[in-house]
Amino acid sequence: MVVQCQLANLSNCKQLTDSQAHHTSTRMPQTMSLSSFPEMIIKKRDGGQLSAEEIHDFIEGVTSNSMQQSQIGAMLMAIWQKGMNSDETLKLTEKMMKSGQVLHWSGEWLVVDKHSTGGVGDKISLILAPALAACGCKVPMISGRGLGHTGGTLDKLESIPGFKINLTVDVVKQTLQDVGCCIIGQTETLVPADRIIYSIRDITGTVDSVPLITASIMSKKAAEGLSALVLDVKFGKAALYKDLESARCLAQSLVTVGNKLGIKTGAVLSRMDAPIGRCVGHTLEVYESLECLKGHGPDDLNNLVTTLGGCLLHMSGRSATPEDGQNAISEVLKNKKALEKFQEMLVVQGVNAEISRSLCSENAEYFQYLQPARYQTEIKALDDGTVLGIDGKAIADVLHKLGAGRSKSEDQINHSVGAELLVDLGHPIKKGQRWIRIHHDCEKLSSKQQQDLQEALDIGSADDYKDSPRVAEFILPH
Amino acid sequence: MVVQCQLANLSNCKQLTDSQAHHTSTRMPQTMSLSSFPEMIIKKRDGGQLSAEEIHDFIEGVTSNSMQQSQIGAMLMAIWQKGMNSDETLKLTEKMMKSGQVLHWSGEWLVVDKHSTGGVGDKISLILAPALAACGCKVPMISGRGLGHTGGTLDKLESIPGFKINLTVDVVKQTLQDVGCCIIGQTETLVPADRIIYSIRDITGTVDSVPLITASIMSKKAAEGLSALVLDVKFGKAALYKDLESARCLAQSLVTVGNKLGIKTGAVLSRMDAPIGRCVGHTLEVYESLECLKGHGPDDLNNLVTTLGGCLLHMSGRSATPEDGQNAISEVLKNKKALEKFQEMLVVQGVNAEISRSLCSENAEYFQYLQPARYQTEIKALDDGTVLGIDGKAIADVLHKLGAGRSKSEDQINHSVGAELLVDLGHPIKKGQRWIRIHHDCEKLSSKQQQDLQEALDIGSADDYKDSPRVAEFILPH
Repeated sequence: MVVQCQLANLSNCKQLTDSQAHHTSTRMPQTMSLSSFPEMIIKKRDGGQLSAEEIHDFIEGVTSNSMQQSQIGAMLMAIWQKGMNSDETLKLTEKMMKSGQVLHWSGEWLVVDKHSTGGVGDKISLILAPALAACGCKVPMISGRGLGHTGGTLDKLESIPGFKINLTVDVVKQTLQDVGCCIIGQTETLVPADRIIYSIRDITGTVDSVPLITASIMSKKAAEGLSALVLDVKFGKAALYKDLESARCLAQSLVTVGNKLGIKTGAVLSRMDAPIGRCVGHTLEVYESLECLKGHGPDDLNNLVTTLGGCLLHMSGRSATPEDGQNAISEVLKNKKALEKFQEMLVVQGVNAEISRSLCSENAEYFQYLQPARYQTEIKALDDGTVLGIDGKAIADVLHKLGAGRSKSEDQINHSVGAELLVDLGHPIKKGQRWIRIHHDCEKLSSKQQQDLQEALDIGSADDYKDSPRVAEFILPH
Repeated sequence: MVVQCQLANLSNCKQLTDSQAHHTSTRMPQTMSLSSFPEMIIKKRDGGQLSAEEIHDFIEGVTSNSMQQSQIGAMLMAIWQKGMNSDETLKLTEKMMKSGQVLHWSGEWLVVDKHSTGGVGDKISLILAPALAACGCKVPMISGRGLGHTGGTLDKLESIPGFKINLTVDVVKQTLQDVGCCIIGQTETLVPADRIIYSIRDITGTVDSVPLITASIMSKKAAEGLSALVLDVKFGKAALYKDLESARCLAQSLVTVGNKLGIKTGAVLSRMDAPIGRCVGHTLEVYESLECLKGHGPDDLNNLVTTLGGCLLHMSGRSATPEDGQNAISEVLKNKKALEKFQEMLVVQGVNAEISRSLCSENAEYFQYLQPARYQTEIKALDDGTVLGIDGKAIADVLHKLGAGRSKSEDQINHSVGAELLVDLGHPIKKGQRWIRIHHDCEKLSSKQQQDLQEALDIGSADDYKDSPRVAEFILPH
């Protein structure tokens, strides 16, 4: 049904010689290799499901730089808007994990880790990593820095003079063999796709997306070569997710993907309204962690550490029940086995042996080595009553403004800035009673900062106090 | 209620001298100047309305390069997902317009323009610009290049040897004075924000957004310093918007913003299923435009030209009714006044006077100057019946693959590739009758291309033929 003919039938057509073929831009037909990135973005923009191949191309495009930054931004926003199902999330996690090195350990080791979605006063890692090591686990914990109102484990540890967050894989292996735990920064070789994507999510308003959070967390944990993982998924005013339902949604996504990747993964849903423990701020949290490792931690901090650790020891088969696991963790805090591990870890990670020993001694003079802030300001209660709530987010925001936090990843932070709580939830408080002590380096708090702090304390009638346990729910593998 | 005190009350605290202040990263609290871009993106992401100030900052960020590409991509996707109300769209249009030079003309001139949202075989501009000039209007038409399946007016004109699309503002002014019309490319100085945003929309799947299209079109038209503007908003299989309702939504947005900017703006909603006229492809469309300017254009092409021109002459007050305006345009096509303007315009825009005269002569040997393709292939009908439809998009897609179109803006195109329709809608057709002639430079069409073309022709019973007029609706200013 086709007639091939040459230069015929065109009205007014005149046959041309080759020499007249001068002003067409090209004589060769173009091959139609439309880049697949716009099509892929449009598919997700319209709520479609990306295939394994498309997700592969997306991550390839991100890591090879062939996908433009604007396309990555648009794709992340489309994912934020339309979500991803569990298949897509699993594929995204796997592809991100495989964008770099994946660690492998001795088959005899029980390699475990804990990950928290970030809270105020969350120093659990500093205590739990050595406690798990003291229970015979291997904990190659890869932590992050603080951004926004939450503090980062690495920043906290760096308030100890000499502490180094970069260890080679060989040193990590040797440290796990000798000590059992280390807490290090993301390396260049592990999950490079996450570094790129995270830095873009951070500036494009696409942080709080369940599939993107899941892929970011689980790709890194999978690359660590873990056997078991416990997640501390926080909800509340000072957490990324404000309500239990949305935090549960994230926790379920994390647990599903983790177990599909062959890691025994469970999650604890914990309230994040008031700060954890009594100290907030890098230096102060190191101080409080050391106190906790010496058996003097506040109850809520002890409880969260033992709950998370117990859950992990049970999931990984080291304890018959979660309660047995909790008891095992409590035991190594009481008998200072965890403290010993912490001290050994500090030395391996660059801290002078004498400083390590001194910080870990019973009557440590912490602030001989840890740098305190120049000034302290105490805020007094404006009413009599019962402490109904302490707004961790409001406190963290003030500390952030005082230099404790980062707005951009390249910002420098002031480790000394922090806050000490002087009252407990549910306890009576008197008008004029000092309830918080702010540590700062600028001479004075602004009146706005003082007011924000005063509003962070909720005082009311004892009848209105509800004692909500910090841990609200467990989501465990079947 | 605040106690300022220095280095007191911290348990285990030891007063430090300045010399010990060694390992904190910085002693100065950071000012909290979080960039407003992420907040702005999150506001739109969540469906909020951007303030005039935020829209100002967005466009400033785009043009000054202070907003990152990934942020622009995410913002455009958020706008695609959540839209903009008419206030936001107006502000966006104004800010984009003001990102560059805004042209001003003699107050005595009636400066008008036409803009089409893009179709297959759409050579209206080539005919209407000189026709309007022949009616005494000034037409500083700034056109675009083709991208995707639609052809660009500039690309069509560039198939005339010597035609230059870049004129300085001074030359444009003189040309309007002497000739009355010119058709030029976007300059560096007009609406730089649109150039940046459009190039990002193009690769991020955010082209088909009513507020973004409105701002892109109207910022450029407003910068042209127009008194009146008619828009040809297309809908159908070969248009960006497939249905009348969504095209009407865009038309209303364009008309609202245009009139608020002080330009008498009206829109024609026109069907874009079958190609306009009988020729598709750059060289072939120049040929058909010249035929139309000589009074020999096909009816549907003549009708669309006179309808759009009549509408514009009426809106701008030059004609008492749209019908009078239509008659005025018809007249300058019949009496060759429009053809004279086109010939003058070609000369001003760089075409050799002899070639211009020759192309515009009654018995022009077009393909002495216009470059034809090497090969032609005719496709025959597979059935007897009536021509119910001709799929312009399918034809354009085949021509695109043959080199007529761009996939990326830097692609070169082949002006000679094109198609001639040999049949008319609603007319009878016989099995084996040649219905389309493809002009191409590769030796053969692939069997896929032949099949795609065969499927582009819809043959059926005469009873099933509906004669839908090309123009479906008018949206005129009050």
